Amino acid sequence: MATPSSSVKPLPVLKDELDIVIPTIRNLDFLEMWRPFFEPYHLIIVQDGDPNKTIKVPEGFDYELYNRNDINRILGPKASCISFKDSACRCFGYMVSKKKYIYTIDDDCFVAKDPSGKDINALEQHIKNLLCPSTPFFFNTLYDPYREGADFVRGYPFSLREGAPTAVSHGLWLNIPDYDAPTQLVKPLERNSRYVDAVLTIPKGTLFPMCGMNLAFDRELIGPAMYFGLMGDGQPIGRYDDMWAGWCVKVICDHLGLGVKTGLPYIWHSKASNPFVNLKKEYKGIFWQEEIIPFFQSATLPKECTSVQKCYIELSKQVKEKLGAVDPYFNKLADAMVTWIEAWDELNNTSAPNSSEQANGVAAK
Amino acid sequence: MATPSSSVKPLPVLKDELDIVIPTIRNLDFLEMWRPFFEPYHLIIVQDGDPNKTIKVPEGFDYELYNRNDINRILGPKASCISFKDSACRCFGYMVSKKKYIYTIDDDCFVAKDPSGKDINALEQHIKNLLCPSTPFFFNTLYDPYREGADFVRGYPFSLREGAPTAVSHGLWLNIPDYDAPTQLVKPLERNSRYVDAVLTIPKGTLFPMCGMNLAFDRELIGPAMYFGLMGDGQPIGRYDDMWAGWCVKVICDHLGLGVKTGLPYIWHSKASNPFVNLKKEYKGIFWQEEIIPFFQSATLPKECTSVQKCYIELSKQVKEKLGAVDPYFNKLADAMVTWIEAWDELNNTSAPNSSEQANGVAAK
Repeated sequence: MATPSSSVKPLPVLKDELDIVIPTIRNLDFLEMWRPFFEPYHLIIVQDGDPNKTIKVPEGFDYELYNRNDINRILGPKASCISFKDSACRCFGYMVSKKKYIYTIDDDCFVAKDPSGKDINALEQHIKNLLCPSTPFFFNTLYDPYREGADFVRGYPFSLREGAPTAVSHGLWLNIPDYDAPTQLVKPLERNSRYVDAVLTIPKGTLFPMCGMNLAFDRELIGPAMYFGLMGDGQPIGRYDDMWAGWCVKVICDHLGLGVKTGLPYIWHSKASNPFVNLKKEYKGIFWQEEIIPFFQSATLPKECTSVQKCYIELSKQVKEKLGAVDPYFNKLADAMVTWIEAWDELNNTSAPNSSEQANGVAAK
Repeated sequence: MATPSSSVKPLPVLKDELDIVIPTIRNLDFLEMWRPFFEPYHLIIVQDGDPNKTIKVPEGFDYELYNRNDINRILGPKASCISFKDSACRCFGYMVSKKKYIYTIDDDCFVAKDPSGKDINALEQHIKNLLCPSTPFFFNTLYDPYREGADFVRGYPFSLREGAPTAVSHGLWLNIPDYDAPTQLVKPLERNSRYVDAVLTIPKGTLFPMCGMNLAFDRELIGPAMYFGLMGDGQPIGRYDDMWAGWCVKVICDHLGLGVKTGLPYIWHSKASNPFVNLKKEYKGIFWQEEIIPFFQSATLPKECTSVQKCYIELSKQVKEKLGAVDPYFNKLADAMVTWIEAWDELNNTSAPNSSEQANGVAAK
């Protein structure tokens, strides 16, 4: 017998073309709240930290789970490019996915409500964002021109109204905002309660702080640039994994004519992380970013870079050349960027027969 | 005896530092609805069309009114740079103002309501926008970081958190959206009912379609660039006055390190203009803009351009050089840009004694 709730289940759009990637160190009870939205989709869980710990996943979810032993086994020496003891490890999930789209979410993110009190299906909104074009070449003052009830305003060039393919959809957070440690320390009680009903394209040439908490992207368009860097265990920095990916992704999207959107959907971010711990992880990033951001703002890629991989390898060279002087860490990071692309291509070589190693995680239904 | 409503009157911020400029061809009954918000301020009314017609202004407003005869008398031969039979004539009001700030609004714009049903004090929000900094150099995903309950997100460079001075505040419209004639024709019934609760800075290097319907700016920072061009009577184009100003303003703001904001406040735009008439005015602009916008997107100003006037004169030269080939109209427009600056400097020469001509409009209380 059908349960009453089954009648209101949303249509699972792109069910067979999207993976949900979740990095975690704990049992995934948070999935219960997402059940109506996530259950039809396949999950890729990347277990961080102690591989001997068992992560419990609520019944009924379709998932594969990779711990550090799996990562080491699948990537061999190239596993060095995947961070340990940092949520940056999630990008391993992007690499092993075989789907066109990825949605990644943190395990302290819950379903938010819109101003009418209705549960927000964040995944559905991300899919909408990804499936309709972006407008990176000119700003539309009424926000997303493709949305119902909106359009391009007077003065918007007609030649640009087809837009550009959307590579990234960056969602936002109600409750705990994504602040750095100094801002957390200064404003411990600040909560984000403003629901801004908009999706907008980040214009070409403009960088933005990409947060990995509630993020979707088109793997085929931009996947190889979604590397979350070297963070956490054995590294001098943490909490810059998504930022690093965001800077690289934006420069490459701009070069390839792809769009990046931000705005809706919101998730409910439940718990502020410890600002003292965060400060320790972040403090080098806080001063390094003063040099990294101008570097990315002025980075240009040559015409020959016609694929994401080529762009990324070129960027790794520029990182070594220009940021190596900031700290030796960037030489190591530049090498890891190359390793990441090698590993990506190994696992995603569509012309080769399916690698048997790819599905070797602990899979369960 | 105080009326009951007097107790809820808003504090008139910048009362002596802001003029409200209204271009019109009819009696200004629309001011009744704005009375609680506009009455403390000084109005500059620019009467378009037949100067013999009498424009009625509701009792109690403090205003000066200029018709075509006044413009001709005050500017002499330089009056040729002020459009006739087009709302572009409003920029004469910017020129004769002696205040630091300008708010300009169309006479078919009424007070909108926010989602809670409260009347929106558009002017107050514009003033807020102008008085707090912009963030043109890096994108903040939680929108205006200076707003209550918001801040800069993780990854936003600390060196950029002081922001840049705000030169322009571009407000939006509920009900009738600002569409071009083709879009009006295709979507005659579309209404904007989405209230997006955000103010954001248009990033450096990004152009936008600036609408003159609900617009505020800092005259001291950007006034001489707010020229609304040659439109209407005797010109091959109309309805591109504000667009022209917007392109020039944005290029100059980017060069001088000034900010341009868009978003809140909304006004209620009551009446769609006739799309057939609009099409006739616009059609040249619709194809010209395909060349004009790339021109402005690639325009750069030399370091020596350290004032708005110098920037604007330099831009006029580039217009003649690069757009003259598109149509001879742009040669005429480039000359008018120079005339505009000459007239601006004549009326705004702060080192000279006050010109007796400046206050020669029909002034009344």
